[in-house]
Amino acid sequence: MKKLFLLLCISVMINYMMAQELKSPNGNQVLIFSVNNVGEPVYTLTYKGKDIIKPSKLGLELFASENVKFGAEVKKEKEPKTSLYDDFKVVDVKSTSFDETWQPVWGETKDIRNHYNEMAVTLNQKSTDRNMIIRFRLFDDGLGFRYEFPQQKNLAYFVVKEELTQFAMTGDHIAYWIPGDYDTQEYDYTTSKLSEIRVINEKGRQGNLSQTGFSETGVQTSLQMKTSDGIYINLHEAALINYGCMHLNLDDKNFVFQSWITPDANGTKGYLQAPCTLPWRTVIVSDDAREILASNMTLNLNEPCKIDDTSWIKPMKYVGVWWEMITGKSEWSYTYDVPSVLIGVTDFTKVKPHGRHGATTANVKKYIDFAALHGFDGVLVEGWNIGWEDWFGHSKDFVFDFQTPYPDFDIDEIHRYAKSKGVKMIMHHETSSSVRNYEQQMDAAYQLMNKYDYPAVKSGYVGDIIPRGESHYSQWINKHYQFAVEKAAKYKIMVNAHEAVRPTGICRTWPNLIGNESARGTEYQAFGGSKPNHVTLLPFTRLIGGPMDYTPGIFEMNISKINPSNTSHCNSTLANQLALYVTMYSPLQMAADFPEHYERFMDAFQFIKDVAVDWDNSKYLEAEPGEYITVARKAKGTNNWFVGNVAGEKGYTSSITFDFLDADKTYIATIYADAKDAHYKTNPQAYTVRKVLVTNKSKLTQPSAPGGGYAISIFEMTDKAQTKGLKKL
Amino acid sequence: MKKLFLLLCISVMINYMMAQELKSPNGNQVLIFSVNNVGEPVYTLTYKGKDIIKPSKLGLELFASENVKFGAEVKKEKEPKTSLYDDFKVVDVKSTSFDETWQPVWGETKDIRNHYNEMAVTLNQKSTDRNMIIRFRLFDDGLGFRYEFPQQKNLAYFVVKEELTQFAMTGDHIAYWIPGDYDTQEYDYTTSKLSEIRVINEKGRQGNLSQTGFSETGVQTSLQMKTSDGIYINLHEAALINYGCMHLNLDDKNFVFQSWITPDANGTKGYLQAPCTLPWRTVIVSDDAREILASNMTLNLNEPCKIDDTSWIKPMKYVGVWWEMITGKSEWSYTYDVPSVLIGVTDFTKVKPHGRHGATTANVKKYIDFAALHGFDGVLVEGWNIGWEDWFGHSKDFVFDFQTPYPDFDIDEIHRYAKSKGVKMIMHHETSSSVRNYEQQMDAAYQLMNKYDYPAVKSGYVGDIIPRGESHYSQWINKHYQFAVEKAAKYKIMVNAHEAVRPTGICRTWPNLIGNESARGTEYQAFGGSKPNHVTLLPFTRLIGGPMDYTPGIFEMNISKINPSNTSHCNSTLANQLALYVTMYSPLQMAADFPEHYERFMDAFQFIKDVAVDWDNSKYLEAEPGEYITVARKAKGTNNWFVGNVAGEKGYTSSITFDFLDADKTYIATIYADAKDAHYKTNPQAYTVRKVLVTNKSKLTQPSAPGGGYAISIFEMTDKAQTKGLKKL
Repeated sequence: MKKLFLLLCISVMINYMMAQELKSPNGNQVLIFSVNNVGEPVYTLTYKGKDIIKPSKLGLELFASENVKFGAEVKKEKEPKTSLYDDFKVVDVKSTSFDETWQPVWGETKDIRNHYNEMAVTLNQKSTDRNMIIRFRLFDDGLGFRYEFPQQKNLAYFVVKEELTQFAMTGDHIAYWIPGDYDTQEYDYTTSKLSEIRVINEKGRQGNLSQTGFSETGVQTSLQMKTSDGIYINLHEAALINYGCMHLNLDDKNFVFQSWITPDANGTKGYLQAPCTLPWRTVIVSDDAREILASNMTLNLNEPCKIDDTSWIKPMKYVGVWWEMITGKSEWSYTYDVPSVLIGVTDFTKVKPHGRHGATTANVKKYIDFAALHGFDGVLVEGWNIGWEDWFGHSKDFVFDFQTPYPDFDIDEIHRYAKSKGVKMIMHHETSSSVRNYEQQMDAAYQLMNKYDYPAVKSGYVGDIIPRGESHYSQWINKHYQFAVEKAAKYKIMVNAHEAVRPTGICRTWPNLIGNESARGTEYQAFGGSKPNHVTLLPFTRLIGGPMDYTPGIFEMNISKINPSNTSHCNSTLANQLALYVTMYSPLQMAADFPEHYERFMDAFQFIKDVAVDWDNSKYLEAEPGEYITVARKAKGTNNWFVGNVAGEKGYTSSITFDFLDADKTYIATIYADAKDAHYKTNPQAYTVRKVLVTNKSKLTQPSAPGGGYAISIFEMTDKAQTKGLKKL
Repeated sequence: MKKLFLLLCISVMINYMMAQELKSPNGNQVLIFSVNNVGEPVYTLTYKGKDIIKPSKLGLELFASENVKFGAEVKKEKEPKTSLYDDFKVVDVKSTSFDETWQPVWGETKDIRNHYNEMAVTLNQKSTDRNMIIRFRLFDDGLGFRYEFPQQKNLAYFVVKEELTQFAMTGDHIAYWIPGDYDTQEYDYTTSKLSEIRVINEKGRQGNLSQTGFSETGVQTSLQMKTSDGIYINLHEAALINYGCMHLNLDDKNFVFQSWITPDANGTKGYLQAPCTLPWRTVIVSDDAREILASNMTLNLNEPCKIDDTSWIKPMKYVGVWWEMITGKSEWSYTYDVPSVLIGVTDFTKVKPHGRHGATTANVKKYIDFAALHGFDGVLVEGWNIGWEDWFGHSKDFVFDFQTPYPDFDIDEIHRYAKSKGVKMIMHHETSSSVRNYEQQMDAAYQLMNKYDYPAVKSGYVGDIIPRGESHYSQWINKHYQFAVEKAAKYKIMVNAHEAVRPTGICRTWPNLIGNESARGTEYQAFGGSKPNHVTLLPFTRLIGGPMDYTPGIFEMNISKINPSNTSHCNSTLANQLALYVTMYSPLQMAADFPEHYERFMDAFQFIKDVAVDWDNSKYLEAEPGEYITVARKAKGTNNWFVGNVAGEKGYTSSITFDFLDADKTYIATIYADAKDAHYKTNPQAYTVRKVLVTNKSKLTQPSAPGGGYAISIFEMTDKAQTKGLKKL
């Protein structure tokens, strides 16, 4: 009560015509908010005294026709005011502090500190008497802010035409970006100056089964930038729920980004109802690139976990019937016997199988055997259910049946066999973006999973969205992804959604969202290849929002050896592939290659067997976007550590100390590194494995090849005999 | 085998350049089909030697961009041929006969004869090598035909731009029509010449919460017409599944109707995949209006029942908490306490109730008591679930929760109480046309119904459809209605869908589709009133496709007595209201008025108590669209008959004989008729009830007032004592 009184006093004392200042707990980040002479909200951000965001406007524009007031009946204003960006006065400012440490269900660290100073500014639009709150949270690692609409009589239902949030940059920064697109995020990153985006934009738009650009200077978030004086700035959003996903559109004369929300089919950007809040807009800032990677701001801006019993949510390492279809060695489909298939009409027991189907009972058992032998938790099988013959390109509504296996996939026998081997099956629900078809079958599909004890589902959204005209990241479809996750939670099912909207930390609230793709994954190494520095950028961009099911572990980089008609090359060394299990944080990690490829390199494969998927601690040791990342992680509930380093096109010589280890202990480290002549293109399989003793005083200088890297497993020595023949590092 | 050989011979012998003739079993209907010199399919229809359909073209136009061929990958033709209406040659003609009698699960008669001659013409489009079959079925009461696309290599997926089916009339017929509309069917009928439609069209478009016209000469089906020489022609469709609903657009210079399919949001009219069939186009023809009403052609053109066990499908007579909200006496909603409600956020146990909520436990119990006392099967309750505060006008996606009752609706107690009284509760699912919201909750909602033993659901689709831009009758949404019915069948739930697409006989295949509204129902008597002849037209139009939940039984016509601010008048006499239970065939019949109104007229109410809802036989005795209908029906499994007569604006003096009764029996008939001075407007509650003895020789001449009618219950005399004091008719 006393606290409340104090707050009220502070509020009343503030001179509302004056700018409001908010500082981060350590004082490095400073936000200034003001309302200008025409009532426009404006903010700036500085970091260690340097401008990060120059004066930038805030607000929304509404659709007139939908701008209805609440009453006994629907009243439409004749000339409704569509601006929610001007004519404002400040009527209240509340400043508070928050400091809490919470424990994620799974994560990079056991504890996460959520520490910020907050300022909630209540604005009143004078001519309409509408209220809007802008809530700023300033952390030591950056800024989050969002628009909030309290319940009020003059604004109940409203439709957003555009959000007008600006991020005014101070200069022509280096940006690590992919082109804005309403339907795909699966682009290779471009490193360029902001001023170069316009020219390069279209070139950066590689082909995809569904893609929709909107502006020559449009880019996606999370957008990583670097200023000429070495400050790293990351723009993204947090808690994207019930709204279109934010893109950024650049005014490249003034270097001002403005929010560009993904529209629904009818061009609207958000149907809103007060009380409501929009997603957080985030600006992570540091002069140390490692702090960008270590930031928990996105998670912290999400709501705490809404699942009471989380005991069934368990990180998983898995193998699967997948890479063989991706490379073209086998197929998802079952038959070529008919010109097209119709669910419920085509009798798959009567058609002639083409003999190239991957998801056969016998083949699946081979993967189950491999998983059991090497201690993997799960086996994913794609192509198990009917519909794959026509799975994309036909705008087919009832494209998949999520309950009926192909005749050669014996779901009962596979369930029995997997159970007998102690392996869990991972379900696959490719929707071909026919979202209604999936929702209509969702309960039945999840019930089937419960019946056959599948703890997790990989869902997919390839191709154009149905309902036709919708895109992959609009409010309408974002609500579907969220619906799928929340319904899955009711069935105690973990979700790994591919081609879904990029994550924004929602896994804090719904930790059964155990993974997402939402970027260019390993599959592109079989679709022509990705840039060798791709994996040095993903942690700065895509992973800011949450873990990625990147599906690493490719040991055979020459794809034509698998399928002679596929000339793709996996642009990565084998050691780099190992390092990804550490550098690409995810509670879900696949060993994507074939068992027979792993069997050729069992000494290297040992790292994949050993590496953890859940962590008590993570230390980012080295980082530069596009160049290199080195991280050490402590496996959950153990004293074992794993280190990963990945390098870009130029390679990198890493220098690390092991000071993260306990002071009084000796550890056995196995270092999986590129051989001297290794190269992602010409000699990717050249690696060395060496075992050494390390302590917290040890240091390592380790070169990584172009597109290379290294991985280290570090086990606490429990028996002196283990050290026999091992030298100190 | 012999038969097949014969057919093949016939096929081969036909000169394909010649016209093909098909006759109905009795020879009255004759169809001629030919392909003209540019390969356009053309048909004509005559009835008893008179032209009914003049030469009319058939075919479809496709969308170019979506006109994809099947192959290993999606191939788009550079200049695909979009016509499926010309360049055809006849490659095969198969003629067959069919004669079968089947038993509906419920219906107007115990047995239905399905007797037709069929001609299936296979057409090949020369330049594309695409095949299309046009299948004609000629019944004694009319023609059905449809387009079929067999599986073939040159046509797998295709998108309809427009269907080009013509119905060329022979002159300026009288038509009984409502304006074409993608979103509502709830219009009063206009009787006019075809040439007058253009002028009247907009005037015929009364206000509705969702409406979308498309043409000044567009009308809906079923369209009833009458020629100057007394032939009745009815145009409609049968088995509308997976396609847009057909409207008719009139070329009013030449009196040629052309099909106009309801488009999806993106303007497409049907995404199709071969093998597939389109809905049947129907032309019912007779020189006796009674034969139009007695026609079973629409049902016969649908597939046989697809539900194995139909024992749970039972016709019902019901009362409900409904008319009080329709008239404005009480409300669906619970509170005015908040400017808007949010499902999952608003705590309804904490808001202040407005005290006008209809669906309270106490009020529902009153209806249960009334139902139990008078032998009704069920009680419908609208407004039981949260969300009604904001139920329309806000384009609100998550508008209703179908699982959570308002705090004053005790679902457990109501379940217990209804069960103790032997009454079934009828569920209500108003969706506000937020179709996704309903589909997302459908399994849970149906499971709740199973839990609480609700055998039937009334669903509603008020307001604009969500997904936004879709309409009420497009392929996309029609698939939803069908999905809801088929899923309901899995849960053994009967469906009564309001505002859904007009029925097309699908209740043969899915007899759990126990009712539909899909026209202007009794509610409009409290929304300003309907024309007094409306109920003499509905059986000729809306009921051609299936039963209507018309909700008759209004005894208090002065709505202002219920709600002083509602000046509506129910344009019907009380006797007319009774007759509707017989003239408006439905396996689901409501007694819609308040218990206290029935209690004022218990002698008249007796008819509603007595009347059956399922029948072994039906005899249409008199009929003229817009003027009068008289029908006698024999109650299922009994020897009792019920007669109903309704009259239009002019009144009518009915003359009937009772020759439908058994020859050797005496019956006690209770005649509920308009009093001499009765009138729908000035004196609607003036009625007489008289009891007489009748045999199969009896005749009755009975005047019906303007907007009036009469009803007769006829019970077989089982005890001589019953006749005491009764005179012969």
